[in-house]
This record gives sequence, C-alpha cells and structure tokens, in this order.
Amino acid sequence: MAFLVQKFGGSSVADPDRIRNVADYVARRHKRGDDLVLVVSAMGKETDELLRLAQEVSDTRPGREMDMLITTGERKATALVCMALHDLGVPADSFTGSQAGFLTDTNHTNAKILQVQPDRVLDSVRKRRVAVVGGSQGVSTDHDITFLGRGGSDTTAVALAHALGADACELYTDVSGVFTADPRVVDEARRMEQVSFDEMLEMCASGCPKPAMRSVEFARTWSVPLHVRSSFTWEPGTWITEEDPDMEDAIVSAVTHEESEAKVTVTGVPDRPGIAATLFRRLADADVNLDMIVQNVSVNGVTNISFTVPQADLGVALEICNDYVADIDAAGVVPKDTIGKVSLVGAGMKTNPGVAAKVFETLADNGINIEMISTSAIRISCVVPEEQVERAVVVLHAAFGLDN
Amino acid sequence: MAFLVQKFGGSSVADPDRIRNVADYVARRHKRGDDLVLVVSAMGKETDELLRLAQEVSDTRPGREMDMLITTGERKATALVCMALHDLGVPADSFTGSQAGFLTDTNHTNAKILQVQPDRVLDSVRKRRVAVVGGSQGVSTDHDITFLGRGGSDTTAVALAHALGADACELYTDVSGVFTADPRVVDEARRMEQVSFDEMLEMCASGCPKPAMRSVEFARTWSVPLHVRSSFTWEPGTWITEEDPDMEDAIVSAVTHEESEAKVTVTGVPDRPGIAATLFRRLADADVNLDMIVQNVSVNGVTNISFTVPQADLGVALEICNDYVADIDAAGVVPKDTIGKVSLVGAGMKTNPGVAAKVFETLADNGINIEMISTSAIRISCVVPEEQVERAVVVLHAAFGLDN
Amino acid sequence: MAFLVQKFGGSSVADPDRIRNVADYVARRHKRGDDLVLVVSAMGKETDELLRLAQEVSDTRPGREMDMLITTGERKATALVCMALHDLGVPADSFTGSQAGFLTDTNHTNAKILQVQPDRVLDSVRKRRVAVVGGSQGVSTDHDITFLGRGGSDTTAVALAHALGADACELYTDVSGVFTADPRVVDEARRMEQVSFDEMLEMCASGCPKPAMRSVEFARTWSVPLHVRSSFTWEPGTWITEEDPDMEDAIVSAVTHEESEAKVTVTGVPDRPGIAATLFRRLADADVNLDMIVQNVSVNGVTNISFTVPQADLGVALEICNDYVADIDAAGVVPKDTIGKVSLVGAGMKTNPGVAAKVFETLADNGINIEMISTSAIRISCVVPEEQVERAVVVLHAAFGLDN
Amino acid sequence: MAFLVQKFGGSSVADPDRIRNVADYVARRHKRGDDLVLVVSAMGKETDELLRLAQEVSDTRPGREMDMLITTGERKATALVCMALHDLGVPADSFTGSQAGFLTDTNHTNAKILQVQPDRVLDSVRKRRVAVVGGSQGVSTDHDITFLGRGGSDTTAVALAHALGADACELYTDVSGVFTADPRVVDEARRMEQVSFDEMLEMCASGCPKPAMRSVEFARTWSVPLHVRSSFTWEPGTWITEEDPDMEDAIVSAVTHEESEAKVTVTGVPDRPGIAATLFRRLADADVNLDMIVQNVSVNGVTNISFTVPQADLGVALEICNDYVADIDAAGVVPKDTIGKVSLVGAGMKTNPGVAAKVFETLADNGINIEMISTSAIRISCVVPEEQVERAVVVLHAAFGLDN
Repeated sequence: MAFLVQKFGGSSVADPDRIRNVADYVARRHKRGDDLVLVVSAMGKETDELLRLAQEVSDTRPGREMDMLITTGERKATALVCMALHDLGVPADSFTGSQAGFLTDTNHTNAKILQVQPDRVLDSVRKRRVAVVGGSQGVSTDHDITFLGRGGSDTTAVALAHALGADACELYTDVSGVFTADPRVVDEARRMEQVSFDEMLEMCASGCPKPAMRSVEFARTWSVPLHVRSSFTWEPGTWITEEDPDMEDAIVSAVTHEESEAKVTVTGVPDRPGIAATLFRRLADADVNLDMIVQNVSVNGVTNISFTVPQADLGVALEICNDYVADIDAAGVVPKDTIGKVSLVGAGMKTNPGVAAKVFETLADNGINIEMISTSAIRISCVVPEEQVERAVVVLHAAFGLDN
Repeated sequence: MAFLVQKFGGSSVADPDRIRNVADYVARRHKRGDDLVLVVSAMGKETDELLRLAQEVSDTRPGREMDMLITTGERKATALVCMALHDLGVPADSFTGSQAGFLTDTNHTNAKILQVQPDRVLDSVRKRRVAVVGGSQGVSTDHDITFLGRGGSDTTAVALAHALGADACELYTDVSGVFTADPRVVDEARRMEQVSFDEMLEMCASGCPKPAMRSVEFARTWSVPLHVRSSFTWEPGTWITEEDPDMEDAIVSAVTHEESEAKVTVTGVPDRPGIAATLFRRLADADVNLDMIVQNVSVNGVTNISFTVPQADLGVALEICNDYVADIDAAGVVPKDTIGKVSLVGAGMKTNPGVAAKVFETLADNGINIEMISTSAIRISCVVPEEQVERAVVVLHAAFGLDN
Repeated sequence: MAFLVQKFGGSSVADPDRIRNVADYVARRHKRGDDLVLVVSAMGKETDELLRLAQEVSDTRPGREMDMLITTGERKATALVCMALHDLGVPADSFTGSQAGFLTDTNHTNAKILQVQPDRVLDSVRKRRVAVVGGSQGVSTDHDITFLGRGGSDTTAVALAHALGADACELYTDVSGVFTADPRVVDEARRMEQVSFDEMLEMCASGCPKPAMRSVEFARTWSVPLHVRSSFTWEPGTWITEEDPDMEDAIVSAVTHEESEAKVTVTGVPDRPGIAATLFRRLADADVNLDMIVQNVSVNGVTNISFTVPQADLGVALEICNDYVADIDAAGVVPKDTIGKVSLVGAGMKTNPGVAAKVFETLADNGINIEMISTSAIRISCVVPEEQVERAVVVLHAAFGLDN
Repeated sequence: MAFLVQKFGGSSVADPDRIRNVADYVARRHKRGDDLVLVVSAMGKETDELLRLAQEVSDTRPGREMDMLITTGERKATALVCMALHDLGVPADSFTGSQAGFLTDTNHTNAKILQVQPDRVLDSVRKRRVAVVGGSQGVSTDHDITFLGRGGSDTTAVALAHALGADACELYTDVSGVFTADPRVVDEARRMEQVSFDEMLEMCASGCPKPAMRSVEFARTWSVPLHVRSSFTWEPGTWITEEDPDMEDAIVSAVTHEESEAKVTVTGVPDRPGIAATLFRRLADADVNLDMIVQNVSVNGVTNISFTVPQADLGVALEICNDYVADIDAAGVVPKDTIGKVSLVGAGMKTNPGVAAKVFETLADNGINIEMISTSAIRISCVVPEEQVERAVVVLHAAFGLDN
C-alpha cells in the first residue's frame, strides 16, 4: 500500500488501446490498495500537432492564445483516462492544472510554478478515488491559462508528489528504465535497478536521453524518489533515489556517450593573465554553452585553448573566436565539426583513485586516441575521434565489468 | 457599419487554410467598420472524433468528463482563429463559454442556457477588437464545464446576438443559402434572397436540411435576423427575418420534400367517440413523433386511420397499433416502410385560396397519386408514392413559377 | 443521358459524410441514365499530410519513393467512393492511374502524360458500371508508379474526357462556379452561367483563383466543355466552353483583381536601340516572370521603363536591374513592393472600341489614379494604388452593368 | 555479419520520430555488415483507421475494394522508411507485396500465400542495399491486390526469411521480449532469453499475448529462428528456436494465465456410449471453439460434462446445450461467465513426473481451489476461481523458481 504519483507520457496514452491498457494497470494497483494520483500528458504527438496548426495559421502567435490552444491536449487525455477508469469500476476525477492548484507566473508558453495547493486532488484521493491531473499546466496570477513548456508533465508529477507527500513518483514511458549503456551500441547493456540522483544527473549531462534532466533536478531538490518504467511491458524499471550504502559497491554504474558536440581550438594564445577569461566571458555573453575546456601548458609564451560546444552553437562560437584572435593577436582558430565523447559515471569513483588510469589504459589498448579529458567527482569523460566512440563505449563497458 | 455576430461552423474552420480564409474575410469586414463577434465550432469533424475516442475507451462515459473532453474542440478552434487574426493586424481575444458569460444548468452533454452576461465580450468589441467565442459551451451553476449539445454553436450565436443587441447574426456554412428546392432534384432550384421565420420553420419541418430548426426558433423568439451564407464563396446568402410586406408577392416560396417517413394504416376501426384519441394517447406516451394524420369517413360504422412517423419510430408504432387492434377489435394494421412527402411553403398562401387546387391538378396532370394531405396556413404537404416524389418536386417547382 | 467525366476534388471527398454525399448524387445521375466516369483526388488535405510526413522523415526524398507515397492518397479515396456506391446499389470499379491506362514519362513527382488507353474504364462504363479513377497518377515507361503533380486530378479528368470522347467534364469543388468579381470585395458579384475558354484563361491570368489555368488550357486544346460546380449545394455552376454567338452580348463578363505583384521602374535609361531588350533578356534568363511592361516616350534622350513581377521574384529582379543600371549608366531603380491591378475581361471588347475610355473615366471619376495599363483583345488591366484596388473593382463592376 | 529479415510492427513506425529511430538502428546494423530485408506494417493504428473509414462509407464492402484500400497503409510506411534510410546514406528500395513476389489466392481480405519469388528483393540485398517490403500483402492469381489479414506482416516476414534463406527473423515490437509471467501480475517476472517453438506455442495458446501464434507456427514449420525484441529500447529480446539441450535444464519456463473464457457444465447426462460425442459434434458444427473438457466418472448411470469456451462463444454454446439436454433428457445446464485459467509451460516437464503434483500442492497450500485440469506433454493448465487466478500465477511463479 503506497501513496504514488504516476505520470503517463504521450506514448503511454497515444491511442484508445493504450489508454485502456493504462486504466487496466491503474485499476490493478488501486485494487491492491495503492492510493494513486495520475499526471497525464497529451496523447502521442498531439502537442506537436497543435504547434503545427498554430504555425500554419499564424506567424505571430500570442502566448495567451498558444496556452489556450496547447493545454487542450492534456485536458483531453485526462478526461479519456477518467472515462476508461470508470469503465473498470474505479471512480476517478479529472482536474485541469488550475483545478489541481497549480499557480504559475504569467510567462506564457513557459510558465514557472509559484505554488501548488492540491486540495481537490487530496480530497479525491482520500475518498479512495483516482485523481487524474493534466500535466504541464496551471493558472497564472492574472487568471489566464498557462503552459509549463514541453516535457512539463514530469515537473507537474514531481511537484505534485512533493506537495502531496507521496511516497514516490513513477514515470511511465516507452522504455523499460535506464541502461548501463545505449543498447544500440552495446548488446550487453543492462537495465539498472537503481541509480542515485547525482549519478543520474551526470548521465543526463553526458548523453543519456531519458529521463529529462529537469525532472531529476526537481526530484533531487524535493527528495522525491523516481521510478522510471515501461507502460508497454509494465515490468519494474529503474529507481532514482538518494545515494545509499548499498549502491557504493559498483565503482562504475554506466557508460554514456554523445556525438552532438563540436570542438574549437584557439592556437597561439599569448600567455598573459586573464587572457583566457576574456574569451570565456565573450562566449558566455553570447549564450554559448561550453562543455569541456582544456588549456595546454605554455610553450614559448604561447598556449592553445580548446573547448567543446553543442553543434548548434558552433557558428556563433567561431565568430567570437575569430574576433578574439584578431584582438589579441593569436595564431588562429581550428574548428572540428563532430567529436565523440565517452563518459563513465559511478558514485564509487569517489573512493577509487585508479579508475582514470584504467580508462586511459583500456582506450590505449584498443588503439583509441584521447583528445580531451574532463572529470567530476563521479564522472570521467574523454573526447575521442568520432568514428571510434562506439568502440570506446563497448570496451569500457566490458572493462568495468558492466557486461554482466 | 453594423454590429454583427458571425458564426463559423466546422466546415468553415476545418483546416489551417480555411481558418486563414475566415480570418482574411473577417479582417476585411472589420476594416470596413463592422463590429464583430465570432462564434466558432470545432474544426471539421473534430467533435465526431472526440466522441469516437470516448466510445473507444469507455462504455460508461460520465457527463462531467464528456463535457471536459468535447469542449476542447471549440476552444482549440477559438485560439487558432484569434492567432490568424493577429497575423493580419486585427486584435482579437478568445473566450471560452464560461468567459463569455454563458451560465447553464447542470444537465451535462445537453445543457440549457440560463443566462448570458457577455461583459468581457462587449468590452472587447468596444475596444475595436474582435471577440472570438467558443460555441456550444458554458459553465454550470456548480462551476463545471458544460456542453450545449451538437449544433449548439448556432444557439450560442443567436443568444449572443440577442444579449449584445447585435444587428444580425450571420451563419457561415458550406452552402450558399436556402434554396427553393433541393438542387440535386431540381436543376432550376434557386437560392432565396429572403424568407420569413415562419416559412423557414415550415421548410425545416418538411425536409429542408439547413439551417437547424432550433436556431431558427431561437432567432424568431428573440427577433434576431439571420443571414445563412457561404464561407467558401462569400457571396450574400439568404436572409431569414420577420415577414415584411415585400415578401408577400410570392404565393409559393419553396418546394421541399422528405423520404425518411413511414406510414401506418389501422383498418376497420369501430366508429365510436374517443376511439382514435386512445390510439394517439398511447403513441404519444411512447414518444412516437406523429407527423400527418388522416381518418376516412365512416362506412358501415367502421373507418380507417392513417398516420406518418419517422422511419426510426416505425417499430414502436407498429407494436402499439397491434395491441390497439386487439383491444378494440379492429380489422388490422398495414405498414408502409417508405413514403414520399412533397410540401409547398409560402406566406402568400394565406390570402390565395386556389393554391391547394392547383397543387392537386398539377400532380394529377403528371400522373402522380396523392395518398395523404395535410396543410397549415402557409404549407401544403402531400404524401405520394416514394418513386414519384422527386418528379412531384420538379413539376410543382415549375407550376408555381419557381423555375425562372 | 450524357457521357460525363466527373472530377471530385479533395474537399468534395474530405470525410465519410462527404463521400456518401458524392455517392448519393452520383447514384441519382446514374439512375437518370447518365454514363459516368469519376476522377477522385485524395481526401481533404491528405496530400499535404503525406508531404509533411515525408519532410519529417527525410531531407533527401527520392522521387520514386515520393510517388509510391503520394499516390496512396487518391487510391484510398477511389476505393472508398466505390464502396459507398456499392452501398447504394450502383456497381462501381476502382482503377489506379496505371489500370486506367495513363502512361507517363519518368519524371517523378511531376510526370507528363504520354498516352491514355482507357480500355478497362470504357469496358466498365459499357457495362453500366461507374468507373472511379485515381487522379494525378500513372505508370511510367519503366513500370514505376508516377504522380502528375499537385492539381493533377483536373488534368486526369480532362485527358480522360478527351480520350473517352465524353460529352463534358464536370469539375466539382467547394465553390458554386466562377463569379463576375470576388464576392468578398463586391457584394453584387454574381455567378456566371457561361464563359468562353479565352475569357476564362484571361481571368485565371489576372487573379481569378479557380479553376486551375492548366486544366482550362487542356480543355481548350482538346475542346472538352468544362462545368465548374459545387459538391456542397449541387446547384448548376459555370460552363466553360468554346465561344458561341449568344455570349457576345456582354461586353464585359467579369472584373478580376490581384494584389500579389510588385513594380520596378528603371529611370533615366538612354534611348538607344536594343537597350530595353538587353534588360528583358537578362530578366528572362533568370526566370523572372514579367507581367506588364510600360516604357515612356523619350524625353531629352532618356526614358523610364516600368514592369511588374510576382512579389516572389522582386529580389532577383532588383539585383538584375541594379547591375543593368550600372552597365548602361542609367539613373536608378525604383521598386514598389505591392501594387494593385484591376482587370476587365469580356469577349465583346473585340467589337466595342469604347471600353477602355469608359474604364479610364470611371476610375478618374472615383479619384483612382492609373499607374500602368496593359490590354489584350479581350482584357484591359490597370495598375492602381494598392489601397484603391478593391474600390476600383467595385466601381467598374457597377459601371459595366454587372451588379444587376 | 548475418542475413536477417527485420519486421517492424505498427508501433515501431507509428510516427516520423519512430521511423527515423528505426532507420537509425537499421543503418547501424547495415554498417556493421549485416544484410537486411525489412518488412513494415502500416503506421500505428492506420489499418484500424482505414477500416473505420470503410465502415463509415459503406455497409457492403467488396473485398477487392477493401484490399485496394487497406494495403495503402503498408505501402505508405514502406516509402517513408526508405526515404529515412536514404537520408542516413543507406541505399534502400521499397517493394509492394506484388513487387516482392508474393503470389496469393483470390480470397480477398484474408488471402493465403501460394508462392514467394523474391527475386527483386534478393537482387537489392546483393547490391548491399536495404530492401523494404510492405507487410501482409500480395497479388492474386487474377492480378488483383490482396491483403493477408490483420497481423499478416509477421507472416510476410517469416515467409520471406524462409524464401531468402535468411539466418533469422527479428520481430520488432513495443515489448522487450517474452516474459516468464505477466509483469502486471508478477513483479518478479523476467524476460526469457530463449524459448522453444513448442513452449512458445503452448504459451500463446494459454494466454501469452505476443507474438502471434500464427507466426510462431510458420516459423516452426519453416525452421526460421525468431527474435522478439523492442524497437523502443533496442536491447536483445527473446529467441524462439528449435529446442536444444541447453534449454532442458528449466523444468518450468513460464506461467501464463487467461481470464477470457467461460465454463459450461451439462449435468445428469445418461451414461450411454456416444452420448458425449453427440454434444461435441453439435458444438463443432456451430464453430464453437472448445478449450478444456472434463467428464466425471459416472455415478448411478449419470455423469456431468464440463467444458470451457471463449466468452464470445458462450451464447451459442448455451443454446446448443439446452437443446441437447432436452433431446437426451439430461438434468440441466450450468453456465459460468468467467473462469480463471493458470498454466505452466516447460519442455522439462516431459522428463519430470512430479510437476503436476507440485502444482496441486502449491495451489492447495495457498487455498486456491482447482476446478478443472488439462495437460499436454509440456503444459499443465488449471481452472481456478476467477478472483484467485492472479494469486495462483504469483505463487506458482515463486514455487517453480522463476522469481530468480
């Protein structure tokens, strides 16, 4: 018997069949005694479809009207899930974001939650009914309908779990959990039973596509245990929780990788105090997202500075660097469109000093060249040639005993 | 410069192209100085689609959830029309039924309007903005979202025109107006420029498919002139108004017909006072909709009673008649599945006694047998053999000078 | 009893309701004795939808795969129309473009018809069945499925009418015919009963949006009478035919207008032989579509040259003109983004010399300034200030007796 | 390096995102050296949608037209997958069922494959291209397009794998494989790595929802190894193959259950030879699908006969039984709407005689009453009270060591 918030994403309620599957599963859990609050996204690709309609009728899309439009998606799914539950004898009430007590600011299309007062939701649960709440929506301080942005249903679910004091928040999706590596790359990749918030955040930041980083951050802030799991197979998935002693055994939990970054090297930079700071200030002012930065030791009073950026930011970064080179009289700028980055994540690294060495040896033994390195307390990332990154993932996954 | 409520049905806003066409036309009218309030239906077949989704997920569809679901259709269309207007430089505000001041009873899925307080709508119009209101929806006395039923957007538009004191209500649809006969049957059928409320109601009742009778009744009650017209060609359509002296010239305005009724004849009914009343009481108690009734003169103390009913009611009617025949010891029941009914409608009939005679002569001259006759002050209807009904329409349309 | 090809566009078969309406109407015509071949487009916006799907999955869309994809739309509609006809007791056979005998070249996505051998279609009609052919498709000389391009169903219909020797080709659409002016601009605009091919082509070229010019050209070439009419009201529409003596009475048949063109004036052009030719050669080589051209009389050895182009071509045209001005040492280039053009079309102009004068007087009397003039044997077009073009249409429509 | 047929079901290609995901994965496999032939179903619920359209336009749906309609779904998906592959630099060719060499009988809407001659497919693969074949379709002996029926894409894939001599057939779906029990019922249910054809068939027959039994039968007949796996996580799934020595270790492989059957008991049947045969002949003649049959030992010359049927067949079965009781003068008929059936499947049962006893003990120890029993060489099924069936699954899963 638990008190749970269960969030069902778009693919979980994509069509009538899936909605009835969700209702069937929720009814089973309800009958076993769990108290349940559901948070529901719009069906399938409906949000995309609504955005497309808006784009097709208008180039100037006022935020108030956009939120009026987009929030119909979740509302529709909410009503349908309730109907399906009624059909199985489970009493259920639908609630819009406003009815569920989500007060937001007036920043249309991307509103922030100011307060959650889920009185009506709690009242419904206390009557042993299932409350079904529209995800990613609220009412603004000036009484207009607001939308929390794409992927906001996760946020709604975590915030509601926190406000209601629920035991956990289950995120139902189309994958069966979080994996030790991308199964498309490593046949031996396994679903993790448990991972800590910190590890998960490092994994999100280094290429793991799901869950959304924002929801993990919320969950960590509010100490809400997350359970990422499948609404297709319904098997138990991956728990994301506070770190606990049992987890520490594994030195390395997962190997992630990314191929969507570019590298820029500024060569022949005069070795003067503050000269690098100037560059990074300019990049920051232009909203360029830097990931890794490496500065070589100075030779003859000049040095090279390399950094990585998302490929989308490369153009802006190059403009800035070219101006910078001219200003400070450096030698030049060398861009590289695509790089491969492989990362190891594991809470056990904190107490195991030899991990880095083993990473370098493993890559070297397999003829994979390391171009850049960056680390955190629980992560080691290496930039390698793009065409070798998948191979790097495979060999590191094996070397650190993740193949089983 | 007029103050108008313009209602756009589903086919008028079926897709982004059509929505932009509507916005373009509204912008032209707005620029010419008209004050405009729009009432918008759900896009195309979206209401059907939502109903289908509901049916596919649930056999028990609670009214509160149905209305939460169905009203998303109009809300979505409302926001899109506003966006398209903004794009053309016309300021516009969307309003849900609740925001537009529609207070209803709590009869979910088919709510009745209790009161209309369109303060926000009026405020928007006074600022020379276009107000865009979701059709067929309101908020109930217990603060739930309600739906006024299929076709309720016409009702919303007429009620709003009345409450706002608008000059007229334009009903935009996919046909160019009301015709003197069905153009599929009579090549010479013409669009009427004007028709009185009473004539229109008789036409609706005798087979004319559009506009919906309910909205004409509302418009007559509240004296709101209607203008039925096309959102595809934008040409002027048909005005439906109070009768005025100019209209009286035409003796016959239109020829309508219907093929969806059945006939029942009870034979050998003893000619005793009240014996027919018994039959019609039983039929009324079973909600059978009677249209025409004919009782022959009694011969030898027995008579025949014939009546027509919608084909859907035929089964129930036959059960009742068979019981009745047994109870009163009549001879039998003779059903006829399909009959053809042709009707002439015209305000001028009131002062022209020869119309009926001319109808009978015309049909006789063309070898068309009349099986039943019923009349009102401004209508003559004849039941004819089903296979002759289209021919009857053609010859009457010509005989009364409507072909021109 | 006629032998007709009836083409139903996307809006005529947009959903099951409309498909059943089409079948009902076709069944009526078939019962009255007409021999019918239908050409059917994809339902509603399905072709757009298929294109969108293709764009969402791929940037490189091989033509062979595109045609495999797009032609499913018409095929689907064809099968559904046949089923609906069967339901009404009318035997019907669906045919793909290939089965209907359309042989095309191999120019995928925009194939040209090489030959039509409609043996199976003719065979079906001879058995008093209705043949239903997928529009805009065929099979290439190398046995691949081909698509004739957007709007190709009209072409299919006209080509089939010609190949079968049908009496006429009916183009069913969402408007009730061709109008004497845009009804959004002129309340008094009326549907024309008849118009000649030449007039229709001039109207198409000067702003009348329907029917597509290409299908009118085909119809003229093959002498196939067209009947443009509504599948919503089913009233008779506008016939487009060879000119006949009865038509000549009307001096002016219609007033059209356009607001999508721009004007460019090159000033101070030295008055030397061939100097204008150089400019227009360059524009032609760059595929700039010129509409009107005016060259003023030379003053002091220099002149001004003005021409109009579609707004989409303005950028290219300006580049070319600027180069040209530099090359020939002219004074400058004056662009105007938007102009209004109003045109009168009428076969009677050929024998009525006073039309032009009356146009100029009418515009002058209404304070409308004429900026450019161009004429053909049956058309007079005037460029006027954009904000006055709709007023120009209104006054000319009245002045030439079209209001009636 | 393998030669594989990969079948992607509707949920795997449900929208552009998923199609691009499939293409990305296929491209990875192709680059690693695999030779690939894809079989693709219609996108998402498109086949349902096409059926619904057909039902909405027609009650009489000729098979030829239905197949023309339905097969557009797979064709569309095929073209889109090819386009997405081209975008990733992988050359690909789409093939309709006809082009892929599937010759069928003329049994429209449910055609049977007569022959597969995949010359063009093989030719494409030999050029290191990916061949993409439309599932569930072919061309009939009289040159019409045919559909193999719902779920026919699996059949297409297995038949193609056989005809091409491929190494295996991968069935991509929305679940990650076959489980040892329904994960909604047993939290400890695990994905099986391997299962034999015979076990899988017994599992299909006793309640396991995927894969379709028909495709497993085909695969067994043609000895095509199947790999059921997820197109959402891409992790390895469950292999279905010939039994091999390694598999024999596990006595019990899986616990399945079913709640969609009803039970009928005929009481007081005279114990005469052939009297039961009469009943089952009548049921067979009425196409009632019998599952389990139990006849008690005769007491005093009368006995009871019980059998189970799908709930859909219950009405017909009861009618037949009532007539039978009257004919043979039995005591009566006792229907039971819903029963629960739990089954254990395992190849090891053949050599382990104690399994049945352990099943009965386990259920007894947990207070679960057994109402009927049936067995095969590798399966034991017990009918238990409906409300206890999920509990039965849980305790048997644990008792036979499947909990891990």
